[in-house]
Amino acid sequence: MRLRFEIEAVCGRARAGRVSLPRGSYETPIFMPVGTLATVKSMLPEEVEALGAQVILANAYHLYLRPGEDVVADHGGLHQFMGWPRLILTDSGGFQIFSLRQLMKIDDSGVRFRSHVDGSEHFLDPERAMAVQAALGSDIAMAFDHCPPSDAPRARVLEAVQRTTAWARRCVEQPRPEHQARFGIVQGGLDLALRRQHLAEITALPFDGFALGGLSVGETPQEMYGVLDEIAPSMPEQRPRYLMGVGRPEDLVEAIRRGIDMFDCVMPTRNARNGHLFTPSGRVNISNAEHRRSTRPIDETCGCPTCARYSRAYLRHLFATKEILFSRLATAHNLYVVIELVRAARRAILAGDLEPWAESVLRRKRD
Amino acid sequence: MRLRFEIEAVCGRARAGRVSLPRGSYETPIFMPVGTLATVKSMLPEEVEALGAQVILANAYHLYLRPGEDVVADHGGLHQFMGWPRLILTDSGGFQIFSLRQLMKIDDSGVRFRSHVDGSEHFLDPERAMAVQAALGSDIAMAFDHCPPSDAPRARVLEAVQRTTAWARRCVEQPRPEHQARFGIVQGGLDLALRRQHLAEITALPFDGFALGGLSVGETPQEMYGVLDEIAPSMPEQRPRYLMGVGRPEDLVEAIRRGIDMFDCVMPTRNARNGHLFTPSGRVNISNAEHRRSTRPIDETCGCPTCARYSRAYLRHLFATKEILFSRLATAHNLYVVIELVRAARRAILAGDLEPWAESVLRRKRD
Repeated sequence: MRLRFEIEAVCGRARAGRVSLPRGSYETPIFMPVGTLATVKSMLPEEVEALGAQVILANAYHLYLRPGEDVVADHGGLHQFMGWPRLILTDSGGFQIFSLRQLMKIDDSGVRFRSHVDGSEHFLDPERAMAVQAALGSDIAMAFDHCPPSDAPRARVLEAVQRTTAWARRCVEQPRPEHQARFGIVQGGLDLALRRQHLAEITALPFDGFALGGLSVGETPQEMYGVLDEIAPSMPEQRPRYLMGVGRPEDLVEAIRRGIDMFDCVMPTRNARNGHLFTPSGRVNISNAEHRRSTRPIDETCGCPTCARYSRAYLRHLFATKEILFSRLATAHNLYVVIELVRAARRAILAGDLEPWAESVLRRKRD
Repeated sequence: MRLRFEIEAVCGRARAGRVSLPRGSYETPIFMPVGTLATVKSMLPEEVEALGAQVILANAYHLYLRPGEDVVADHGGLHQFMGWPRLILTDSGGFQIFSLRQLMKIDDSGVRFRSHVDGSEHFLDPERAMAVQAALGSDIAMAFDHCPPSDAPRARVLEAVQRTTAWARRCVEQPRPEHQARFGIVQGGLDLALRRQHLAEITALPFDGFALGGLSVGETPQEMYGVLDEIAPSMPEQRPRYLMGVGRPEDLVEAIRRGIDMFDCVMPTRNARNGHLFTPSGRVNISNAEHRRSTRPIDETCGCPTCARYSRAYLRHLFATKEILFSRLATAHNLYVVIELVRAARRAILAGDLEPWAESVLRRKRD
């Protein structure tokens, strides 16, 4: 296998480990910042790295549309194109095609859709999706999946599951760069029987890791935790387990204690740009008038570069005047909080006291 | 005086010097990046400093409206509020009140205007304008002036000149922080007789330096150079000479050779955000299709951090997708180009060969 996963410690169902790939390694549990368009919005690569990020996520659908994977390949791949020296995971684009609702026609051959940018017509199938990711040169490529809406009836979820399995079989047949690992995606919505069936089908294929897709798409946290309770323990123990699209601090803690190793989510960075800043006791809305004269940082206990230097009043001023610097300072803070939360969970697993740590984190949020 | 100006070298009419103030010093000629709202748009202070900036400009009118000078004063002044460790010059706001055309009533007492943000009514006069700048704690405060439109008839220019003189007399009577120097502003449009008369009136007052206002406001470059030819040599030799609002590379060279020491302009940073990037042979419009696949930097000969790492294709991609990182990378480039151009002029003055240097720079732009 191109991916080696060593489990360093187990604490309940939670695991602390290390994933080694041809071009680098990373520690788990891990939160991967999202850089959809070959940029973690507002940030330079070295800043993202300094916050502790070891892997970032880019998106094959978006980069296929703009600038085109040929342009990226001309530069020697995504790492060179964007100047990111560490590892990159690319999502295949399945989720985006469905969630941007530009879908025109889907059948077993593939998906015809309109670009959300200019309305132009495109076709992606498993072969093309893997070829795009090969051209991008990511370290981990995701299988091309069919992700139905969260409220889809069982028949449609079943169809999506069957199609995702058929597509996964085609994905693993495709050529890929020497350094590229591949993850399969398990769908099935909130239907545990379908989830279990699909897990069996996907894990029968020679993927290097496995992801849960179709969660955090509108269901309640309790519904998502219910799926994790049932499915995570059945995911192959010796492969990394990746919960796609989850990054709310509470959800990270709950998923890690249920045995998940990898996460990505736009929420910390998107919330940041919208003025919602994470603190241990909940979110601060920086636009609130109470912060107008506050010389306090967002959080006195935070180790991020923003809290080291800037007051809530300055941040509120930048937000109110729509200054670009606000996005930078807020993104640095929220990313640091989420990355550090997951690293703290890792330390707690290694120390064998994840549960008391998790309880103390969650209690502060509930207070 | 609170400001000491040592002339290190003279070359024709051009001067290379050093300005010393209670809280720091800077070399001239100098280009001062604009940070209107207590942020050089998109940039962190340490990045602006690393580009070679020694002084930045902030705006009293804008900061009076948002966040309010009281908030800045609570933080100990602008330097602490925004985290800028070097020197700050504040413009008084006169130019903004007139150029944003929210003027309601102007007479010898002061200016009644509407906020461009929320339409609320405000009143500024010389006393208030200097008090705002005192609260901001800038190192150089500008007198409160009346800047008429570039196409104003002579009678209106005369009235503005007379009012600016009366206001300047009130400005120099106001209290100010121990560390703060004050510059007077010479108006008079393109009327050389009025300019000369106003220069005599303003330089009779105890200012630490003198600025030319009301240029680069719509007249041709040749008209502006004509005013500089006539007026700059008559400005006090032992005080810094500041040409407000000028930053086009050609204009910087032409003004330095006519004896100007200081400059500010939004153009390099605003152009950057609009995708217009400076090169020795003219501007590159990064949105042009020709750059789609270009792995070249903006300028192979440029020493800026953007050109060291990023291709035109990556920059074009960020611009096309409206990514925030574009503004950062483009701003760093354009600011570096302008700051380095002015530093190169300084080196040429010190070496005694400004004229051949200026000719070679201007020739490349004309080619």
